Amino acid sequence: MNEIKIFAPATVANVSCGFDILGLCLDTVGDEMVIRKSETKGVRITKIIGQDLPLDSEKNVAGVAVLNLLKELNSDVGFEIEIYKNIKPGSGIGSSAASSAGAVYGVNELLGKPFSLKKLVSFAMEGEKLASGTAHADNVAPALFGGFTLVKGYDPLEIIKIDPPSELYVTVMHPKIELKTSDARSILKQQISLNQMVKQMGNFGGLISGLYTSDYELIGNSLHDYIIEPDRSILIPEFDSVKKACLASGALGSGISGSGPSIFALSRGEDKAKEVGEEMASVYNSININFDIHISKVNPKGIKIIEKNS
Amino acid sequence: MNEIKIFAPATVANVSCGFDILGLCLDTVGDEMVIRKSETKGVRITKIIGQDLPLDSEKNVAGVAVLNLLKELNSDVGFEIEIYKNIKPGSGIGSSAASSAGAVYGVNELLGKPFSLKKLVSFAMEGEKLASGTAHADNVAPALFGGFTLVKGYDPLEIIKIDPPSELYVTVMHPKIELKTSDARSILKQQISLNQMVKQMGNFGGLISGLYTSDYELIGNSLHDYIIEPDRSILIPEFDSVKKACLASGALGSGISGSGPSIFALSRGEDKAKEVGEEMASVYNSININFDIHISKVNPKGIKIIEKNS
Repeated sequence: MNEIKIFAPATVANVSCGFDILGLCLDTVGDEMVIRKSETKGVRITKIIGQDLPLDSEKNVAGVAVLNLLKELNSDVGFEIEIYKNIKPGSGIGSSAASSAGAVYGVNELLGKPFSLKKLVSFAMEGEKLASGTAHADNVAPALFGGFTLVKGYDPLEIIKIDPPSELYVTVMHPKIELKTSDARSILKQQISLNQMVKQMGNFGGLISGLYTSDYELIGNSLHDYIIEPDRSILIPEFDSVKKACLASGALGSGISGSGPSIFALSRGEDKAKEVGEEMASVYNSININFDIHISKVNPKGIKIIEKNS
Repeated sequence: MNEIKIFAPATVANVSCGFDILGLCLDTVGDEMVIRKSETKGVRITKIIGQDLPLDSEKNVAGVAVLNLLKELNSDVGFEIEIYKNIKPGSGIGSSAASSAGAVYGVNELLGKPFSLKKLVSFAMEGEKLASGTAHADNVAPALFGGFTLVKGYDPLEIIKIDPPSELYVTVMHPKIELKTSDARSILKQQISLNQMVKQMGNFGGLISGLYTSDYELIGNSLHDYIIEPDRSILIPEFDSVKKACLASGALGSGISGSGPSIFALSRGEDKAKEVGEEMASVYNSININFDIHISKVNPKGIKIIEKNS
């Protein structure tokens, strides 16, 4: 195989009470990438369609992630990458992660899979470092593993995949405003009380249990974040109204996707997820901010191969 | 049925990173109780063998828990309770909880089970309030439900039971020293950093995942508590040496049982749990503090009925 075309999904990180730990993979939103072997050593980004992003591979997250992989392999093979971006950078649904994760996944396939998924996460994290300053796995882990992922820790890197309940759907609304990750980070309080932690962990434990047992009611009762969301949500116009509208229309729960500005909701069944999307839209239609709405089941597999060419 | 004899198990609360949330039920350590219907309204503690505890039902945790149950039922039936205590109060393995939980469980059986297990937890919590000042469910929940329990929250009370992996064994060492729960509480820091919380939640998520998937390695990798244990363990002589000995002999992990002074370890298989107990013992033999050692699988069912008499 000399060429592969893949779908690199968008992802939701910081799922409610799972700040910095719990992410999920989307199925209907994502980029496409074509990756092919080349006789010239190194990595070249030959085409980026849809967004204005650097072609220089040392300044492009996909390039950096693959360079990191190749360094470990000590390989002479070179690669060309075409990126067809559908996920807007800065939207809060893992745009850079899709590119980094997709690139290392594709290269690994073309090389005959020398690396585990976990190892690919660690390479893709270098792309995230370029994008945000921190080599985090919040989005690259769910993009590569699919389903829900727990980033248990970084030293050593430990990723736990949880298969998603089959009827779980995600509604994501992306308000077209700019929100810097650095601002969304700096607004967080750095000290929390022991009582708050216990309350947060109670919900987190409930959420994980609900995912393992496909208990939708428990998932809904657990989607609360009393620590991050109250501070961060003030950066997102009408967050409280949107969340209220989601819950009133029967969503299991709702929260900030990543560090925002996107807002996600989880629902049981696709019809409910669509209904929730309409309610989100009606709040934003009333304040004249443009937005996109995505409806997706939780993607159980992560990155998908669209085409292989020899 | 007019009389019932039950086994009311000891329990381990605050399982490692699950402070205030995660508890487990023991199988080979516990009290026995005989509960019988009486024509005299109210509750009488007619006998307590093994420990010097108040017979006055308003001053006895079992009495208070049952009075609470009867108040809700508005019943004219009375009960007599005999308690054969094997769990020493103040040991940190849920002595008061066994009595409270056992009493309401037995009474509920004799009344034809009008109440759910969760409701029994709420009655038994009133016994805990008498014992420690706080109506907590940390020990009464695992005693009544068996297995592992998550106390997700109190308002409303939500308990999640997790079935224990079948080869999971517990070793508990009870150092015969006095340690007041109030001292063990007051030593805790009340503020923690966001980073510490994320690290703790990573392990907590790993532990719950490990329990659901019977992944013993993951359970072992997750049994870390960086928040409570470092402060509280200084109240327990040679805690660090005991823990080190447990891990060196192959325990999956080790921590403080409840608020101490008991120390627990989890192991895969009974033989390993016994070996771990011997290592714990050898540390304490060298410092001349008396102790008990208990080896038990995790009790999947909780309280057991030994005998029913009409």
